[in-house]
Amino acid sequence: MKLSNSFLSGPSIIYFSRIRVTLLKIYFMSVLVKEFNDYRSRMNEVILSKNNLVMKRLWNLDTNAYENGALDKKTKEMLGLVASMVLRCDDCIKYHIGKCHELGISTEQLYEIFAVANIVGGTIVVPHTRRAAEYWEALVSDNQ
Amino acid sequence: MKLSNSFLSGPSIIYFSRIRVTLLKIYFMSVLVKEFNDYRSRMNEVILSKNNLVMKRLWNLDTNAYENGALDKKTKEMLGLVASMVLRCDDCIKYHIGKCHELGISTEQLYEIFAVANIVGGTIVVPHTRRAAEYWEALVSDNQ
Amino acid sequence: MKLSNSFLSGPSIIYFSRIRVTLLKIYFMSVLVKEFNDYRSRMNEVILSKNNLVMKRLWNLDTNAYENGALDKKTKEMLGLVASMVLRCDDCIKYHIGKCHELGISTEQLYEIFAVANIVGGTIVVPHTRRAAEYWEALVSDNQ
Amino acid sequence: MKLSNSFLSGPSIIYFSRIRVTLLKIYFMSVLVKEFNDYRSRMNEVILSKNNLVMKRLWNLDTNAYENGALDKKTKEMLGLVASMVLRCDDCIKYHIGKCHELGISTEQLYEIFAVANIVGGTIVVPHTRRAAEYWEALVSDNQ
Amino acid sequence: MKLSNSFLSGPSIIYFSRIRVTLLKIYFMSVLVKEFNDYRSRMNEVILSKNNLVMKRLWNLDTNAYENGALDKKTKEMLGLVASMVLRCDDCIKYHIGKCHELGISTEQLYEIFAVANIVGGTIVVPHTRRAAEYWEALVSDNQ
Amino acid sequence: MKLSNSFLSGPSIIYFSRIRVTLLKIYFMSVLVKEFNDYRSRMNEVILSKNNLVMKRLWNLDTNAYENGALDKKTKEMLGLVASMVLRCDDCIKYHIGKCHELGISTEQLYEIFAVANIVGGTIVVPHTRRAAEYWEALVSDNQ
Repeated sequence: MKLSNSFLSGPSIIYFSRIRVTLLKIYFMSVLVKEFNDYRSRMNEVILSKNNLVMKRLWNLDTNAYENGALDKKTKEMLGLVASMVLRCDDCIKYHIGKCHELGISTEQLYEIFAVANIVGGTIVVPHTRRAAEYWEALVSDNQ
Repeated sequence: MKLSNSFLSGPSIIYFSRIRVTLLKIYFMSVLVKEFNDYRSRMNEVILSKNNLVMKRLWNLDTNAYENGALDKKTKEMLGLVASMVLRCDDCIKYHIGKCHELGISTEQLYEIFAVANIVGGTIVVPHTRRAAEYWEALVSDNQ
Repeated sequence: MKLSNSFLSGPSIIYFSRIRVTLLKIYFMSVLVKEFNDYRSRMNEVILSKNNLVMKRLWNLDTNAYENGALDKKTKEMLGLVASMVLRCDDCIKYHIGKCHELGISTEQLYEIFAVANIVGGTIVVPHTRRAAEYWEALVSDNQ
Repeated sequence: MKLSNSFLSGPSIIYFSRIRVTLLKIYFMSVLVKEFNDYRSRMNEVILSKNNLVMKRLWNLDTNAYENGALDKKTKEMLGLVASMVLRCDDCIKYHIGKCHELGISTEQLYEIFAVANIVGGTIVVPHTRRAAEYWEALVSDNQ
Repeated sequence: MKLSNSFLSGPSIIYFSRIRVTLLKIYFMSVLVKEFNDYRSRMNEVILSKNNLVMKRLWNLDTNAYENGALDKKTKEMLGLVASMVLRCDDCIKYHIGKCHELGISTEQLYEIFAVANIVGGTIVVPHTRRAAEYWEALVSDNQ
Repeated sequence: MKLSNSFLSGPSIIYFSRIRVTLLKIYFMSVLVKEFNDYRSRMNEVILSKNNLVMKRLWNLDTNAYENGALDKKTKEMLGLVASMVLRCDDCIKYHIGKCHELGISTEQLYEIFAVANIVGGTIVVPHTRRAAEYWEALVSDNQ
């Protein structure tokens, strides 16, 4: 990670440093998203390999619950997100923020979900909102 | 409540009984909605009369959180409902179901919110879903 | 409910009163159990009538989760009970206490489940333990 | 409860009605406090009669936790109250409000505890705050 | 951790790599168990050194609650585990999984506890189930 | 971090080692406090930069709730701490422990708050109490 910058001098160093900082930031953000997804997949595999039928069916049901119906996917993922936030489950929040991002929810909309979650669930939701905000930044910078 | 029906006989009794049962059901349902709203208003008044500024401002903020913005009122009330369900707060559920009803959410949409809440929050949400379903029937029969 | 006892006098009144008190107690206890079951059935019917597939499947899954497997029904109902207690869901507690009673769990065993729930979940579980104890007495007196 | 007021007429009826309303309100309030305490005592007796040692010792410990120490009783009861509020346990709230009342906490102080609980725990604490406010009024009117 | 493997070549490298990977996996798993236990012991010592009597007695009581009685240790540890899972306390889960492992609970039984916890507590229990599954693998590979 | 100690020998090494261990411990403790505060500030900035009015006002209100009033700051911070503990929010706990430390709460008083939290909230609060105890040690060693 430590790149020599001895060949840079004068105002150019500021310019290049800024780029490097941005690149590093994007790199670390990607790591945040990737690590979450990797651990999730790896452990899901372990759990499914044990062939517990109730667990398997619950997971299928979980997928069904968010499919298009009388309410569309986007609304349902927002419901999943706010529910995860007030229940203060960081991994559930990350998962639904990922889905919300895929489905094109805007930053402004996301923060209105955050607001409802913080009003209903109180300031104990704040630390989870911080981690949610960090994960959102990671997703957004990944896509640039 | 016990009305004499001795003057009724033959098939007409069935017809009138059915009407009476429906009327009584609507009557009791109205009571459910009315009692909830009355108690809520009465105690809100008591609380506000004590002039605690933090409480007052929190309640104003609560109103703001559900106003039209990047997300519309309807979506926000659905968010409020699902959050109340997974946190298993019967009175909060009633309040948001009332708002969802006012804003024209359909029974089918409501039950998809119930489904998300029950999947995320588990079967401990079921008893609250029962009371939510009862309250919804009350609201619907009130409006007929 | 008000029975005339004017024809009773002397020591016999004490004897008969005691029987009456016991009978009344059993009567009220039965009401507690019956009311819980009636409301539960009635509202389950309302919910199922709306044909939300996720809700239906979740309820089937819930039934499966407590069937004999690597662990027997009895152990699983005890697991369901302790989970309901620490999550402080009175109706869920009643349901699982009913099942525990059917499956022959003793009062002493029940109170050891109560003890684990109160230690893990703290004294906020106590009020729910009171209602659980009341319901257990109702079930036991029903069966006499 | 229905007292004849046919002998009253003119402006005096307003005066006496007001007294009657106040008396009735105090009467019902007392009932609220009494019923809570009675049920609590009755069920505590049932639970203790089963001789579960862990339950008994936990209850002793609970008493110890609120005794004078590095912090005084009053502060500890306030801690118990705010903890009960954010955990949304109505009976626990009533118990600690009763203790706070005995120890001379003022209405203004009580509402500042309510404010902290509502900020930390969010608006889902509001319905419990309503019932807490009602119980406080009952205690205050009892003491007049 | 970086072992030179330059002296290996041909098919033997695959064979030895597989052993090394397995050894490394066991090594990391042991670290997971060891780190949990070490931190737990170290901080318990700090807490006990402050001589708060209520804390000390609560911890003794906690030990008593899981001893053989009308229910055996094994059942009680399963109760403790399911309670910890629905309350989503990762460290409590690890502790009780450790005990369940010591008492000879099978993987199939463990996953039926997981299933009850996930049905009662909902999909917000899933991320904790992942970490529970990981810890179980660590315990099992430790014992090989 | 790796300081050469080759120039030390005999009993002096024990003496200096002890100093070094203490210094290192203080260093790591400071890191714990610093990291918490840095992450908190950094993410608060991100959140506030999105200009969601509800979030901003809630945070202002949060500040107001802990100001001197009918109850003093110190009592209110203790209320905030116990509420955070029973709701098991590690970051909230750290924040309020920091405030309690600033306002001069003693270790004995802190552990009485811990005791109330553990009695009300049960042994699932224990792991959070461990992390709270660790953070307190960090704050205390920072100030020496």
